Amino acid sequence: MKTTLVVVGRTVDKHLIAAIDDYVGRIKHFAPFDIEVIPELKNARKLSEAQQKEAEAELILKNIAPGDVVVLLDEGGKEFRSTEFAAWIEKKQQIVSKRLVFVVGGPYGFSQKVYDCASEKISLSRMTFSHQMIRLLFVEQLYRAYTIIGGLPYHHE
Amino acid sequence: MKTTLVVVGRTVDKHLIAAIDDYVGRIKHFAPFDIEVIPELKNARKLSEAQQKEAEAELILKNIAPGDVVVLLDEGGKEFRSTEFAAWIEKKQQIVSKRLVFVVGGPYGFSQKVYDCASEKISLSRMTFSHQMIRLLFVEQLYRAYTIIGGLPYHHE
Repeated sequence: MKTTLVVVGRTVDKHLIAAIDDYVGRIKHFAPFDIEVIPELKNARKLSEAQQKEAEAELILKNIAPGDVVVLLDEGGKEFRSTEFAAWIEKKQQIVSKRLVFVVGGPYGFSQKVYDCASEKISLSRMTFSHQMIRLLFVEQLYRAYTIIGGLPYHHE
Repeated sequence: MKTTLVVVGRTVDKHLIAAIDDYVGRIKHFAPFDIEVIPELKNARKLSEAQQKEAEAELILKNIAPGDVVVLLDEGGKEFRSTEFAAWIEKKQQIVSKRLVFVVGGPYGFSQKVYDCASEKISLSRMTFSHQMIRLLFVEQLYRAYTIIGGLPYHHE
């Protein structure tokens, strides 16, 4: 199973980029993983929130291939404890034949088109974090999940 | 009201340090804030988990002064949405006369002594994050809370 994180907008904070890259490198010791960045809309300020969501949806859907299992990082999604998330990832490894694709939306959330192509929604926190921070949170949790699955001494209960 | 974050163990990841410092600087535009770092126990490996928690408790309690309102960042704590956290901070600003002190524990959680001196427990996520990441999450949320309180365009609902 390959795992991909699809995100809208480049991370601009160089410290966060470096911290994210560190975890991406660690994840790759366990399984194939990449982050696909959809460039921010150039004319976003001229668009309404609904128009931005639609335009982002088109770009997100271009990054989804037939057979991908799509999971949205969404504030209305299921919250996991880290051990539960690890068990969920382990189960996905058994049933996902191609790609497990996580998608982080823009500041206004997802359009209905994106919800329609997703099989699940998960939430990292009830709190809202910047899209750059969400990436860091996600890669830390995915790394943590692999260490839990592998029985490595990173996570303490 | 002054807000302090008490943490156990230095942050060693220079990228996370820089990202945390960035938010600390932004928070200080709104209200006094600092992070008090309790050094990691030198002989931690020779101590049991319970002994580590007790030794950490002594050091944490040294950083608490009479009149401080102590809030633990604890996995069993109340979860907030960002807007709820902002409203909670705003209320605290009205009722806390001295310091609002948030405490992040070590990897094994808090000893009973620390629970006993706390008035509340909050949780940033059901997931467990590294103690370094928790600091970054916290400062981003505190900054976000102040922008929500101040009506600034950082947070989108």
